Amino acid sequence: MLNTVTETLLMGPGPSLVSQSVRDAMARPTIGHLDPRFIAIMDEVKSMLRTAMETGNDLTIPLSGTGSAGMEASFVNFVEPGDAVLVLINGVFGLRMREVASRLGAKVTALEFDWGQPVVPGRVRAALAAGSYDLVAVVHAETSTGVRNPVEEIAPIVAGTDALFLVDTVTSLGGVPVSVDAWGADIVYSGTQKCLSCPPGLAPLTVSERGRDRLRRRTSPVPNWYLDLTLLTSYWEGAKRSYHHTAPINMIYALHQALANLIDEGLDATHRRHAAAHERLAAGLPRLGLSMLVDEGSRLPMLNAVTVPEGVDEASIRRRLLEEHDIEIGAGLGPLAGKIWRVGLMGETARSEHVDRLLAALGDVL
Amino acid sequence: MLNTVTETLLMGPGPSLVSQSVRDAMARPTIGHLDPRFIAIMDEVKSMLRTAMETGNDLTIPLSGTGSAGMEASFVNFVEPGDAVLVLINGVFGLRMREVASRLGAKVTALEFDWGQPVVPGRVRAALAAGSYDLVAVVHAETSTGVRNPVEEIAPIVAGTDALFLVDTVTSLGGVPVSVDAWGADIVYSGTQKCLSCPPGLAPLTVSERGRDRLRRRTSPVPNWYLDLTLLTSYWEGAKRSYHHTAPINMIYALHQALANLIDEGLDATHRRHAAAHERLAAGLPRLGLSMLVDEGSRLPMLNAVTVPEGVDEASIRRRLLEEHDIEIGAGLGPLAGKIWRVGLMGETARSEHVDRLLAALGDVL
Repeated sequence: MLNTVTETLLMGPGPSLVSQSVRDAMARPTIGHLDPRFIAIMDEVKSMLRTAMETGNDLTIPLSGTGSAGMEASFVNFVEPGDAVLVLINGVFGLRMREVASRLGAKVTALEFDWGQPVVPGRVRAALAAGSYDLVAVVHAETSTGVRNPVEEIAPIVAGTDALFLVDTVTSLGGVPVSVDAWGADIVYSGTQKCLSCPPGLAPLTVSERGRDRLRRRTSPVPNWYLDLTLLTSYWEGAKRSYHHTAPINMIYALHQALANLIDEGLDATHRRHAAAHERLAAGLPRLGLSMLVDEGSRLPMLNAVTVPEGVDEASIRRRLLEEHDIEIGAGLGPLAGKIWRVGLMGETARSEHVDRLLAALGDVL
Repeated sequence: MLNTVTETLLMGPGPSLVSQSVRDAMARPTIGHLDPRFIAIMDEVKSMLRTAMETGNDLTIPLSGTGSAGMEASFVNFVEPGDAVLVLINGVFGLRMREVASRLGAKVTALEFDWGQPVVPGRVRAALAAGSYDLVAVVHAETSTGVRNPVEEIAPIVAGTDALFLVDTVTSLGGVPVSVDAWGADIVYSGTQKCLSCPPGLAPLTVSERGRDRLRRRTSPVPNWYLDLTLLTSYWEGAKRSYHHTAPINMIYALHQALANLIDEGLDATHRRHAAAHERLAAGLPRLGLSMLVDEGSRLPMLNAVTVPEGVDEASIRRRLLEEHDIEIGAGLGPLAGKIWRVGLMGETARSEHVDRLLAALGDVL
């Protein structure tokens, strides 16, 4: 059955195209998780993640799960039962944050915005003036709608309070600047299968010193042994590394190579490439009679929500793109199911030739 | 740094050697997690896992984390705060079960046995006669000591109660029979990097119908969104699959190939190969003046605890094996640190030529 797997142009909401160098890295021989050579690779991964996330945070590691495990870890370590949490919601991933925090016994306040519209900083300021919170959480790139939330405007508002600031950068990291230290964000997680162009399976996470202080002051044990950051750091930090769980060795090889590729190209150049691919797509869609869901100022370059025209069966278009053109694009989620396609221009996918191939294929099947 | 990674004979407690076919599978092109071709691969993985675990359980899937995520999922889904849990402990992984269950608010009773000795069924019977439990948990192959616990004798004792029976088969699956249905076990998890000879990163899990009933009768939400089995089954089961999290696509390719290799060779033949490698090692150690920690009747074939001779610096021996012979063996954990080496004969590692190479290398460095 594995021989059915052939090169497909991945233009959905992730995974994105994975380059041959990353696939080759992943296929290198497995070595032990405490082998000195592997420890050296781990140290380089941490260092390259700090570059990618623009942070000096010591605690900057990939967790052994997908981006959703990053969300889980971010709440389960930093929220205790009864803590007041403010979640800014304008899509599926904001809703998921509310669900994750609620299950952990937090008192969650949801500040909701229209799907397809960005979070409004003024409303965040008003909410933080009206109530006291232990943590404020927002999704930088809302993958369900294609909206870029103004984290750089929200950050200084949260910084004026005692709340920790938690940011989901699963879809943004590698495609637009993720400036953890400049934002003053305390907990930031991501995923590997979006703009890092690595297969899914790991969740990069970084935590500020303020975040670590909060962790040290917890009064209850973290109710998740697997994602307990204090235990994880005994494996990822320090001169003597202790076994916690067996790290996903080959996935970490892949992330190492993906980060090296990103840094080789340069963050600025990578961001420009994402922007250029997006602009090429945005310019081409109207020629096919298609339009974007999100207003120009709030669009994400790597996740483009394209409105499905009246009378078009969106699923059959996706099926034909996949079967006849080897191109995958994504469906809408939740209230946007059936109403939009989600076109990913992430990592290796974000190249003009791929945009042109999609536009030509759409012209064929529409 | 990745070019420092070369073929190493992995004879530690996992990861084990990964065959080229599995590495090639892992390096195949990434496709979408809802691509019909990937759904077909998932279905084959489920089916092959049922064969490997000797079960007809519908709910038989790989979780998106390492073996320790399997442990976490097994407790967090099936234990609610205040539940009475009996954990049988004779090593690090039994202790870990106690820790995981305690963090979830269970009332945990630990029935402890000497490290290096197996669980005694009579004491389990007495404990279950004296108290009422919602769940009984045991480790089949205690990786920290090399002891095989008599799950087949414990199972009928637990079956006479209302408790769910949870078994850790991280190290045993693929090396000795894991007979989930014959045992009547309700929740059984494993890992990929031991006798399945696949890189670390996934946790096979199977759940009986009785286990699923318990899950449906929960009164509180599972306090772990990422590992919530009810949500996971909406992605892994049924005609219409819903997005939960992005599956680790390439790791699942690797598991698919590893399971196909196991089934091609045949479970019985694979188990015989593990037994033969173990016997060859056990026969060779005395010639080097070395002995095994565990009594013959309770030894695991795939994890051999070898006593460090008086006056020998165990760490320097491990280092020399790695640096001079490209062979990794494992150290002792907890109270056995410094006292034993752990020699893994798992999956592809369990071959006579590897045993001979280790014995020769040990003869050289001792």
